[in-house]
Amino acid sequence: MDDDTATEILEATSRALCKHGYADLTLTDIADEADRSKAAIHYYYDSKENLFLEFLDFLYERYTAQLPAVDGGTPRDQLYTLLETALTDEEAAPAQEYQTALLEVTAQAPYNDAIQTRLVSFDDLLFERAREIITAGVEIGEFNETVEPAVAAEFLMTAITGAHTRRVAIDQPSERSYEAITQYAERHFLADGLSEATH
Amino acid sequence: MDDDTATEILEATSRALCKHGYADLTLTDIADEADRSKAAIHYYYDSKENLFLEFLDFLYERYTAQLPAVDGGTPRDQLYTLLETALTDEEAAPAQEYQTALLEVTAQAPYNDAIQTRLVSFDDLLFERAREIITAGVEIGEFNETVEPAVAAEFLMTAITGAHTRRVAIDQPSERSYEAITQYAERHFLADGLSEATH
Repeated sequence: MDDDTATEILEATSRALCKHGYADLTLTDIADEADRSKAAIHYYYDSKENLFLEFLDFLYERYTAQLPAVDGGTPRDQLYTLLETALTDEEAAPAQEYQTALLEVTAQAPYNDAIQTRLVSFDDLLFERAREIITAGVEIGEFNETVEPAVAAEFLMTAITGAHTRRVAIDQPSERSYEAITQYAERHFLADGLSEATH
Repeated sequence: MDDDTATEILEATSRALCKHGYADLTLTDIADEADRSKAAIHYYYDSKENLFLEFLDFLYERYTAQLPAVDGGTPRDQLYTLLETALTDEEAAPAQEYQTALLEVTAQAPYNDAIQTRLVSFDDLLFERAREIITAGVEIGEFNETVEPAVAAEFLMTAITGAHTRRVAIDQPSERSYEAITQYAERHFLADGLSEATH
């Protein structure tokens, strides 16, 4: 299949997922959304699961392509851009329906190694980028020297994941989580923030 | 129905949920687990959904009953007990299968107001308890006076939720999240922790 056809089917998967959720999604829904026959979709993918794994790879590539945009400015700026990308950006953290579908998929991870492997890759990708930024911030003295980059990055991953889940579970707006997490980072990481906090 | 029968059916629901997950769970599975006929279960509950809402209420009551145990010691001790209850205690945060089923249910919340209302109650209950503890800690000077109890409590809720999701998504052990979150609380809340961090 050429790249355009693949992208077209995967974009259709994304729209169909928002409309139907993961559990109810069928190859027919995706075919309808892509304006193709079900046979045409079946020609490329033998099951919803295989198409979906391809879709997760597609999201991963899109995410990877966005992260270099996090490179401008100081580590503090980079950390904010990273949090914004992970939490509020509509391309990386899109509509409520989409987050909901991704959470449905997440709940399948323990039963499906291929899905879990991909979720671990997403987590690793973001974790590594956060760890690099925090390490750089500590090195140049913008972040407090007592911050342990690996521990702090993992804690940020936990908070980002929680923000995504609470958005679905209790309809908590992403912006509010973004504020709470940046306020934490401000106090916890920044050398100035910390000394202000003690006076 | 008498209370014993109700409890028996709800305990059976819990076991059936761990075995089958939420999406595949049927009233027949629950009947099998409770060693009753499907008709007997249907006599009390007309649908899986109604039985499940009852089950969420049952979990909520059990959770409510556990929280007073968080009352001993200083606010710092109480916060640790709260985090332990939410993150590692096997009754409140039980087996992997159970967390997985609860995440499946969470992904239904946007489509089901009755489920969402219950998830909001769980979140509120834990949030309020955390906020009370942090407020008391700030008042007696055990926690740093610049900590804003509502913001800090909400951030803890986000981290606890993230720990539950990552446990399912990437098989991250709860103990590791517990350590990361308590380490954050230690540095962020405790008056001593903060001043140490700046020297």
